[in-house]
Amino acid sequence: MIRLSIIGSGNVAQHLIQAFSKSTETELVQVFSRQPEVVSHLITSDKIISDLNHLIAVDVTIIAVSDDAIVAVANQIPFENQLVVHTSGSVPMNALHTKNRKGVFYPLQTFSKTKEVDFKLIPICIEAENESDLEQLITLAKSISNSVNNVNSEQRKALHIAAVFVSNFTNHLYQIGSDICKENNLSFDILKPLIQETANKILTLSPQEAQTGPAKRQDTQTINAHLHFLTDGHQKEIYKMLTKSIIDNGKKL
Amino acid sequence: MIRLSIIGSGNVAQHLIQAFSKSTETELVQVFSRQPEVVSHLITSDKIISDLNHLIAVDVTIIAVSDDAIVAVANQIPFENQLVVHTSGSVPMNALHTKNRKGVFYPLQTFSKTKEVDFKLIPICIEAENESDLEQLITLAKSISNSVNNVNSEQRKALHIAAVFVSNFTNHLYQIGSDICKENNLSFDILKPLIQETANKILTLSPQEAQTGPAKRQDTQTINAHLHFLTDGHQKEIYKMLTKSIIDNGKKL
Repeated sequence: MIRLSIIGSGNVAQHLIQAFSKSTETELVQVFSRQPEVVSHLITSDKIISDLNHLIAVDVTIIAVSDDAIVAVANQIPFENQLVVHTSGSVPMNALHTKNRKGVFYPLQTFSKTKEVDFKLIPICIEAENESDLEQLITLAKSISNSVNNVNSEQRKALHIAAVFVSNFTNHLYQIGSDICKENNLSFDILKPLIQETANKILTLSPQEAQTGPAKRQDTQTINAHLHFLTDGHQKEIYKMLTKSIIDNGKKL
Repeated sequence: MIRLSIIGSGNVAQHLIQAFSKSTETELVQVFSRQPEVVSHLITSDKIISDLNHLIAVDVTIIAVSDDAIVAVANQIPFENQLVVHTSGSVPMNALHTKNRKGVFYPLQTFSKTKEVDFKLIPICIEAENESDLEQLITLAKSISNSVNNVNSEQRKALHIAAVFVSNFTNHLYQIGSDICKENNLSFDILKPLIQETANKILTLSPQEAQTGPAKRQDTQTINAHLHFLTDGHQKEIYKMLTKSIIDNGKKL
C-alpha cells in the first residue's frame, strides 16, 4: 500500500484525487487546498488541510498546482528526504527543492472539470532521481493507468510541445471550423463525424498515410478559391501557412 | 426502388458503391471505371462499363470523380433530362452541364481506401434545382446515412473549407506531433489518447469551452520556452501563429 498526499485543487489535482480514491493499492492520506470547499465533494474533510505546515511525510507527495507555483510550494514543504513529485509537462524535475527526493508524475491528458475521464487510458510519464524512487512511481502510476512511460525532463518538454500541437492547436482549428459554420448558417454538428474519423484514422494509419485534402494533392485551384473565400485575417494566414507546411512536408519524402 | 449509377473508381466512388450495394432501397445499375479491375471486387462485372457512351439513363447518376474532371465527365454523358449529381465539396452545382437536371450529393468525410467507414454516420449534403429532385436525393441519402442536410453551393464551399481546417490541417498537426516524438525518441502512441480525448471533448463542450493550454492561459513563459525549443522553421511559425490566434480569439469574447 503506497501512502500519498496531493497538493492542489485544480483540474489535474481533482482528477488525481478521484483516480486514487478508487485505487485499492494506494492510500490518499492528505489533500492540501487553500479553499477546502473546492475538494470537499471528493474526499472526507478530516483529510483536507489548508495549511502546508500540517503536511505529514508519506511515500509520495504529489504537487499538482499551476506551473508557476510549483517551486514556491516545493520550498514550503515542512519535511525532508521524502519523494516529492510534480505533475507538470513543462517544469524540469530539478526545479523542485533539493531538501526532498525529486520526481515527476505527468499525466498526459487534457482535463476539464466538467468532463469525466477514464484514467486507465491516460499515459503517465514518470521520472525520478534513483531506481527505487522510479520503481515506486511505476507502481503508483500502474495503480491508476495502463500506460506508464519513463520520460526524462528534456523528452517531457518535447512531449508537452507535441501535446500543444495535437490538442490545444487542434481544438483551435475546431473553433475555426465552428466559426465558419456559424457565419454560414450551418450546424457545427455536420463536422463532428469528420472530426471523430480524423482522430480515429491515426489509430491505424500514420499521419503521413492519413493526410488528404487540397494541400496534399497540391490542388492550387481549390487552395486559391478557399483563400479567396476566407475574409478573416487569422483564418487566411493559418490556411496559407498550414497548406505550405503540408506541401513542403510532401516534398521532403 | 431508386435506380442509380456511379461514375468513378476513386475513394469516394468505392465507398459509395459499397454503401449502395448494402442498401435495399436502391439498385446500383452501372459503375463506370476506366480501369474495370479497380472496382471488380465491389460489383459484378456485367455492371461495370469503361465507355461513357454505354451509360444508360437511370433515376440518379452520381459523378464521383476528382474535382477537375467533373465538368468534362458531365459533358460526355450520352443522355439528357435526367438527374445528374456530383459529390464534390468545392465545385458549384451549376458547373454541371445543362442538358441534364443538376444536383449535388456530397458526403462530408475523409475517405481512405484502406479504412472501412460506417456510412450511416456520414453527413450527406444535398442540393438540387427543384423540389422533386431534392426529394429524390433525400430518399437516396437516407438509404445510406442517418444525417442528410440541405446545403446550397455557397454553404457547401464554406463547409468544405471548414472541413479542411478540422480534418486536413488537424491531421497535419498530428504529423508535427509525430515528428516531434520521433526526434526525441518517444513513441507517438503516448499522444493518441490525448488526440482521441480532444476530438471527443467537442461532442459535449463547444471548442471555446474545451480550449486549454499555454496560449489560452496567456502563459508567456511557457510559450517562449516552447518557441526556444522548436528548431524547425515551419513548426515555429505554426506555433506562433496559432498561439496568437488563440490569444486574440480570447480577447474577442
